[in-house]
Amino acid sequence: MKLVKVYVTLKKSVLDAQGEAIKSAINTMGYDKVADVHMGKYFELSFADDYNAMEKDVDAICDELLANPNIETYRYEIAEAE
Amino acid sequence: MKLVKVYVTLKKSVLDAQGEAIKSAINTMGYDKVADVHMGKYFELSFADDYNAMEKDVDAICDELLANPNIETYRYEIAEAE
Repeated sequence: MKLVKVYVTLKKSVLDAQGEAIKSAINTMGYDKVADVHMGKYFELSFADDYNAMEKDVDAICDELLANPNIETYRYEIAEAE
Repeated sequence: MKLVKVYVTLKKSVLDAQGEAIKSAINTMGYDKVADVHMGKYFELSFADDYNAMEKDVDAICDELLANPNIETYRYEIAEAE
């Protein structure tokens, strides 16, 4: 059993309005040491078994469904799951 | 400069409707080896500097703002940022 952890974040050149809003809320709460906040999405995909084309499939799933390649980038790591 | 990476996910006991919908979409796309999908949120908090109470503050920020403790759990890791 394989667990693929996918992190999708906005490209650096894209304005992260959500992150800005969260940063402002955190600062208003009194935590003024937080200098910057970025928000993204996190996915866990479970595969019953490892197979040769798994990374190719994960790339395709990210490009076609999980991330918008125009404004977002993604990275993932593959872990063993119990 | 410290970078805190926060992962917020639904508790195992809570139905992950988004994850189910994404799994169904992935399977419809022809990737039938994906057995399960969970969706969560991902945050990056930048701190200008390390300080003693940083972990306490991150816990408070997660509990009060980033995660809903009733239905979500969070974990975070602290990394050095350039």
